[in-house]
Amino acid sequence: MAPRADAPVAIVTLTSDFGTRDTYVGAMKGALLSIDASLSLIDLTHHIPAQDILGGSYALRQGTDRFPPDTVHLAVVDPGVGSERRGIAIDDGRHRWVGPDNGLFSHVLRQRAARVHQLTNPDLQAKVVSPTFHGRDIFAPAAAHLATGLDVSAVGPVVDDAICLAQITSQRQGNELVGSVLHVDHFGNLITSVTTQDVQALGAVAQIVIGRTTITGLSVTYADANPGQPMGLIGSGGHLEVSVRGGHAARELDVGVGATVTITGTGPA
Amino acid sequence: MAPRADAPVAIVTLTSDFGTRDTYVGAMKGALLSIDASLSLIDLTHHIPAQDILGGSYALRQGTDRFPPDTVHLAVVDPGVGSERRGIAIDDGRHRWVGPDNGLFSHVLRQRAARVHQLTNPDLQAKVVSPTFHGRDIFAPAAAHLATGLDVSAVGPVVDDAICLAQITSQRQGNELVGSVLHVDHFGNLITSVTTQDVQALGAVAQIVIGRTTITGLSVTYADANPGQPMGLIGSGGHLEVSVRGGHAARELDVGVGATVTITGTGPA
Amino acid sequence: MAPRADAPVAIVTLTSDFGTRDTYVGAMKGALLSIDASLSLIDLTHHIPAQDILGGSYALRQGTDRFPPDTVHLAVVDPGVGSERRGIAIDDGRHRWVGPDNGLFSHVLRQRAARVHQLTNPDLQAKVVSPTFHGRDIFAPAAAHLATGLDVSAVGPVVDDAICLAQITSQRQGNELVGSVLHVDHFGNLITSVTTQDVQALGAVAQIVIGRTTITGLSVTYADANPGQPMGLIGSGGHLEVSVRGGHAARELDVGVGATVTITGTGPA
Repeated sequence: MAPRADAPVAIVTLTSDFGTRDTYVGAMKGALLSIDASLSLIDLTHHIPAQDILGGSYALRQGTDRFPPDTVHLAVVDPGVGSERRGIAIDDGRHRWVGPDNGLFSHVLRQRAARVHQLTNPDLQAKVVSPTFHGRDIFAPAAAHLATGLDVSAVGPVVDDAICLAQITSQRQGNELVGSVLHVDHFGNLITSVTTQDVQALGAVAQIVIGRTTITGLSVTYADANPGQPMGLIGSGGHLEVSVRGGHAARELDVGVGATVTITGTGPA
Repeated sequence: MAPRADAPVAIVTLTSDFGTRDTYVGAMKGALLSIDASLSLIDLTHHIPAQDILGGSYALRQGTDRFPPDTVHLAVVDPGVGSERRGIAIDDGRHRWVGPDNGLFSHVLRQRAARVHQLTNPDLQAKVVSPTFHGRDIFAPAAAHLATGLDVSAVGPVVDDAICLAQITSQRQGNELVGSVLHVDHFGNLITSVTTQDVQALGAVAQIVIGRTTITGLSVTYADANPGQPMGLIGSGGHLEVSVRGGHAARELDVGVGATVTITGTGPA
Repeated sequence: MAPRADAPVAIVTLTSDFGTRDTYVGAMKGALLSIDASLSLIDLTHHIPAQDILGGSYALRQGTDRFPPDTVHLAVVDPGVGSERRGIAIDDGRHRWVGPDNGLFSHVLRQRAARVHQLTNPDLQAKVVSPTFHGRDIFAPAAAHLATGLDVSAVGPVVDDAICLAQITSQRQGNELVGSVLHVDHFGNLITSVTTQDVQALGAVAQIVIGRTTITGLSVTYADANPGQPMGLIGSGGHLEVSVRGGHAARELDVGVGATVTITGTGPA
């Protein structure tokens, strides 16, 4: 076990589609702590739908912003484990990221001057690597070493063609903006691809159409609507969200991921 | 990242109705750790039913007792987020509590000489506060600052009218005590409003009636009954509990939260 | 709160059938941290099926290997709580284990020169012990004391007849090996009692029969099969696993825990 002394606390977050019934997450944590017992391990979520890379990418984008500088984000949604797909580590100048090169880190690759390296250094891997569990045997050890101060360049050669998924954005046509539902949260809120910036460019919001429902204007918070009433608002992640006060919008409006949302603006102020 | 050195470890527990599929809990933890990376963060539960303030209050009452002095309990079940409802911090002389002023902390306000302050100090909040996520932008930062030693009076003005829900208690009529089911746990145990003290005042328990089931006498532990047999006992939280050995009492006795339980005593010894 | 200073970080893992909706796990963590606030607490899983000792034993066997030396594993699947069943602590020379003596630690008792002691020392227990929650009042305090350096012999007298469940193994008849499904994981993978060693003794695998499905040969990783195709491979825990690429083998092959799997080998090389 590593002495703690004056060393700062290094944080590793974990995100996966492993669920919490098995001990796969526990095994990854064991591998992390066997390299540095003083790591602070924080679960983002392990309930990404199985093999849903887009869902994992969304979770990483929404859940990581508030962590302090130097945090390492370990993410494993990995349908291609054991195949030719690469493992990568990324340093974006603020946080580090470790996992499969399958698009999971698209938002990091897209938005920042990211340094990407392939995980090939055998000294940073388990002695025996299971072909079905790189999370435990390759990604967790790499994440632990990065968290304790290793530079991302030490994991292996530079990668300049990491896989970056096309971003789901919104299309503007005059006063109309067409987006789609990216995520349905635990409360049934419908979180869309329409951003604060998109909405601001429209001027004031006249109406929002989603499924068979038309909503007039934009609310500020859930309590602005009457119980049971649908509303649109800018959610905590900076996206337009359609909610039902005290209810479950996805069920009550019969709308899910991928559904179209159309916002009509009053024109720029 | 904060140096750890000789500083003691500060603990923050988290309780919410956020579930664990989204990254809302992760975002709160990021906000906490960005103020002090050395905090020890402990989840009580994030599976309070959505917007169930009474359920959240019950969880806080049952789950917090064993934590060491100075622990900070951050709790967010917050249907009124963004409205006029206040945010508060409470110091009860042993633990600190942070969250919405909506009754969630009723048991703290009721039982102890609690100092209550409103969360108004902007220096203890995120620079931009989302009107839909005070958990991340107001409560988490306040909890982190309290955990690192800030006095509760520094968060804002004194509150002397914090919301306190009516307590669900039991009614005594002669040898009969009438209470209700407060909670159904993971094993199906029916935890009632009847306390150890209530039962002691009755003398020995003659019978317990719940739903269509009559139970004779009081057991000490689950193994005292035969498999499949219903029993009453004093549970680990100091409340009368109705259980079925090796079974799921709520399903098998067809009884849920709010159901009436009637205990007949033999009279005081 | 304990000063951290130069002390190494002590790790306690937690495994139970408590689920995560109640605050039972939180109460155990409070009890642990009230003895040493600097403990690093790691959940293996709390979703062992209620009172499934065999399932708990499987989880402990699969999830604990990677943790660093001196880790303490606290496990509570405890249908006999409050009865005559003993509480025990085990030191196997590498890790320590604390929980009920009901077979939960069979793999530890079986495989190593384990020192087993009964938890009788009242100084290591809560002042008042609930007859229904030894996890909080006996096991958690003992685990915390062991993690901070107490020797296992200090908890109480030696136990030389701890309960050890019969191991579910595989039967070999010539070129045929007959085993059974031990566990269905979150992805629907069927993890069997057949080990790497069993398979190696067969030489190359000719075919695997499970339920109504026959699989030819052995794959190395999930990506080796076509989408929707069943395959057999050696999983990350060293057991033969039957999977469907991109699918849920248990549902699609209509097979569950206890089902028979028959492997035919080509004979030793």
